[in-house]
Amino acid sequence: MPVRIKKYSGEFEEFSEEKLECSLVRAGAQEGDAKAIVQKVARRISEGMETRVIYRMAMRELRRASFAAAARYDLKFGLMRLGPAGYAFEKYVAHVLKHHGYEVKLNQVIRGRCVEHEVDVAASKGDERILVECKHHEKPWVQCRIQTVLYVKARLDDLSQVFTKAMLVTNTKFSQQAIEYGSCAGVDLLGWRYPDQGSLEWLIDTKKLWPVSILTMADPRIIGLCIEAGLLLLRDVQALSVEELRVRLHLSRQKALRMKREVEEILGGEAS
Amino acid sequence: MPVRIKKYSGEFEEFSEEKLECSLVRAGAQEGDAKAIVQKVARRISEGMETRVIYRMAMRELRRASFAAAARYDLKFGLMRLGPAGYAFEKYVAHVLKHHGYEVKLNQVIRGRCVEHEVDVAASKGDERILVECKHHEKPWVQCRIQTVLYVKARLDDLSQVFTKAMLVTNTKFSQQAIEYGSCAGVDLLGWRYPDQGSLEWLIDTKKLWPVSILTMADPRIIGLCIEAGLLLLRDVQALSVEELRVRLHLSRQKALRMKREVEEILGGEAS
Repeated sequence: MPVRIKKYSGEFEEFSEEKLECSLVRAGAQEGDAKAIVQKVARRISEGMETRVIYRMAMRELRRASFAAAARYDLKFGLMRLGPAGYAFEKYVAHVLKHHGYEVKLNQVIRGRCVEHEVDVAASKGDERILVECKHHEKPWVQCRIQTVLYVKARLDDLSQVFTKAMLVTNTKFSQQAIEYGSCAGVDLLGWRYPDQGSLEWLIDTKKLWPVSILTMADPRIIGLCIEAGLLLLRDVQALSVEELRVRLHLSRQKALRMKREVEEILGGEAS
Repeated sequence: MPVRIKKYSGEFEEFSEEKLECSLVRAGAQEGDAKAIVQKVARRISEGMETRVIYRMAMRELRRASFAAAARYDLKFGLMRLGPAGYAFEKYVAHVLKHHGYEVKLNQVIRGRCVEHEVDVAASKGDERILVECKHHEKPWVQCRIQTVLYVKARLDDLSQVFTKAMLVTNTKFSQQAIEYGSCAGVDLLGWRYPDQGSLEWLIDTKKLWPVSILTMADPRIIGLCIEAGLLLLRDVQALSVEELRVRLHLSRQKALRMKREVEEILGGEAS
């Protein structure tokens, strides 16, 4: 008998064991572990249960099986914790694009035909000069709406002498109308699970560009310190010694050690 | 010795007796009354006092002198109370435009080049077909920003086969950048004290199109009932008998009577 669960958007859908297993495997859980977790979780799911609750159960089980996989499974929430100011998300997106071969410049003020614009990220690759607008949401169910895509398009039009195209990056999903307009008006959209090929989490996962905000030891204060110090990626933390970490982040030796260990646990054992 | 007061925006400015007097007279206070109120209020102003506090003191005094003038002085807050859904503000703006000779249609869904758009108000006058976007703010210090003007411009572009121009209406102020972009990109802006000639409150005051939300007896529930019943203007209420009011708004006879009296007190004695 199929059970319906409640998504973040408020809509209902049938609970799918396959879908849950797939997301666990994608996060790096062994197939056997993933199957066992799904079995455990499935037994406790009831009609109308919220995705959030199911996610938390799976997360708890996954953490027991693989700490590293659990951290990566938490990417969606890690990206949310980059808020609230939003500036950290812009910086993070710039890092991700840089690791994918773009040249990036942050927070440029550029004169357009009508007015000056504050451009989150100016990226270039080959002949393309790309106006990148970042839209950070703190709630998973908040979609990036058409209004934002429209406004990026008008900004591109005003800056058409400087940029050849525009890209809108968000940590959540796009509304159907936003997608429709974006592809018609020539604004590239990059978000959670969008587009099918080369979504934001794909860009992150394939190059292990996970943000420090997925660390379980990173509370808002520590995330803030990392952002200030320009340490947005686990990779950046990995490159530093415990002593350097301690000094750059003003952490106790114990906390620096814990951070370093957690980062190694997630990144360490894998070929990069 | 000049005293500095704190504006809604958080900025400071020198308190001006003339400015306060001017706003009271504009609301309909007799010149003598206005002067007397300013004297009373000025004595109690201290360095750094907030505009909001001064406004409340003036309002209290004005109410004693002229109930009708006090209600109109409250227009800015009356417009804010049309929220929070924003839909009431769209309806209200449509009414104001209609009384100024526009033909208006509310909440049209219109197919553009790329996507369908929900258009708040489609207005026309002569050869002009105007896409009207309404932006309601519940806090007086929230400005209408350039992002909104950009997005209206892109919407107009997508709907350029249907509309000849765009207008953005807000109940607060526009940022300097929004004004700069709007006038360059051809989006008409209409807001609080903007433009100098023909601002939103000018359109309202000159034709006595005050909203029901300026009534002191109108709590959020009553405002909601009025909106549902399509009674957005005091003029609409004036046109009904106490009995009609009672039935249309599901009010007690006593409340209907009180509403009717208050409306008469504001509109009644004046030539329209």
